[in-house]
Amino acid sequence: MSLNSKKAVVLVSGGLDSATVLAIARQAGHECYALSFDYGQRHRSELLAAAKVVEHLGAIAHRTFVLDLAQFGGSALTDSSIALPRQHAEGIPVTYVPARNTVFLSIALAWAEVLGAYDIFIGVNAIDYSGYPDCRPEYIEAYQRMATLATKTGVEGQLIQISTPLLHLSKAEIIRRGTDLGVNYGLTLSCYDPSEQGLACGQCDSCRLRREGFSVSGIADPTKYVSH
Amino acid sequence: MSLNSKKAVVLVSGGLDSATVLAIARQAGHECYALSFDYGQRHRSELLAAAKVVEHLGAIAHRTFVLDLAQFGGSALTDSSIALPRQHAEGIPVTYVPARNTVFLSIALAWAEVLGAYDIFIGVNAIDYSGYPDCRPEYIEAYQRMATLATKTGVEGQLIQISTPLLHLSKAEIIRRGTDLGVNYGLTLSCYDPSEQGLACGQCDSCRLRREGFSVSGIADPTKYVSH
Repeated sequence: MSLNSKKAVVLVSGGLDSATVLAIARQAGHECYALSFDYGQRHRSELLAAAKVVEHLGAIAHRTFVLDLAQFGGSALTDSSIALPRQHAEGIPVTYVPARNTVFLSIALAWAEVLGAYDIFIGVNAIDYSGYPDCRPEYIEAYQRMATLATKTGVEGQLIQISTPLLHLSKAEIIRRGTDLGVNYGLTLSCYDPSEQGLACGQCDSCRLRREGFSVSGIADPTKYVSH
Repeated sequence: MSLNSKKAVVLVSGGLDSATVLAIARQAGHECYALSFDYGQRHRSELLAAAKVVEHLGAIAHRTFVLDLAQFGGSALTDSSIALPRQHAEGIPVTYVPARNTVFLSIALAWAEVLGAYDIFIGVNAIDYSGYPDCRPEYIEAYQRMATLATKTGVEGQLIQISTPLLHLSKAEIIRRGTDLGVNYGLTLSCYDPSEQGLACGQCDSCRLRREGFSVSGIADPTKYVSH
C-alpha cells in the first residue's frame, strides 16, 4: 500500500454541499474517490442525484456503500413512523440520524486506508446547519485525532486529514463558491421529502436553508420545487 | 429516548475475548444488546459461534449488522487474494482489516444512541494482541472523546463510555476470568482459518495466542483443532 498525497475520499450525498466539496477537492488537485451511502434513507432520489453529480464533476471511482442504519430507527430520515417536520424547531431535530457522520467517516476511513489516501472530504457546516452535534468543529477535530490513532497510516506517522472546506461558510457563500467552480446545482437534491419524481418539497428545513442561500447569494435557484 | 444507565451495547464476534466481555457486562448488571458483524469475513463460522455465545450467556437482543467491508479489500481476513500467514511476523499483520474497530464502534454508537444506552463494551486487548493500531488504549480514549462530541447523548451532558475490561489482561487472565464467570469457551471460535466444519487450524496467530493462553492459565483447552 503506497501513500499518495493526491488521493482523497470525498463523501457525496447528492446534495448541494457535498457537490461543492467535490468541486473544491478536484480544484485542489486531488484524485477523488467519491463515496455515497445507501443507508435506508427515505429520500432515495438523493442517490440518483449523487450519481449525476459525480458524473458531472468527475472522480476516479464512485462507490455506493450499502448499510441498513434504518434497522435501528430513531430518525425521521430513516423511520417512516416519525413524521417529518414542516417547520423549523429549536434543538436537535428529528431528522438527526444517530451517529451518521461517525459511521460515514469510519467507512470512508476504511476505504482511504486501503487506497493509501490520507485525505477525507466531508461537507459539514457549522453555520447554516440543522443543529446536528456531528457537524461541529470540535467533533471533526476529535474525529481526526481518533482516525490518526486508528490506522496503519497513522502509526506510520501520517496524519489523517478530515477536510471540511465548508465548515465556516454560509449557505450563500457555498453557492457562490460552487458556482465559480462550475457546479450545476440543478443536478443536486437537498430536500428531506422529495416527490416520487425527485422534486423538492420547498418546505422542509433543508429546502428552507437552500432557498435562503440562493436568495442571499443573488444566484438564480435552479431547484425544481413541487409548489412555489 | 430515555437514558438508562443499565443498557449496554456489547460487541460479540464469536471469539474468546468478546464472550468474556459479554459475561463481564452481564455480571456488572447491564441489560446487554449484543451486536455482531457480517462484514465479508472469510471465516463465517464465527457468526455461528457468536449466536451460540449470546444464547449461552444471555442478552436482551442480538443483531447481526451486514456491511461489505470486503469490497474495499486490503486484508487477508476479507480478501481471498491475500494469503493467511502461518507464522507470526513483526509489525501490523496482513490480517488487519482497515479501520475495522472504528467502523464497528461507530455502528454500535448508532444503536446505543437509539437505545438510550451510553455504555459500549468491546473486547480489545493491549497485551496479547496482534499488533492492530485500533486495539491501543490511546485509540480507545480518543474514540470515547469523539463519540461523546458526536452524539445527542453527549450534547445532553452524558459521556459515552467505551468499556474495555480486557485491555490490560493477558490471554491467560482473560480465560481465568471468563471461566470464573461460567463462560463455556467450547462455544467460541478464535481461528482465522477454520475448516468447513468450524474446527480451528491451530496454527494462525489467533490460534497460537489462544493455545498459549489456555496453557498458561492451567485450564483445559476445549477447542477442537483440525490437527494437534
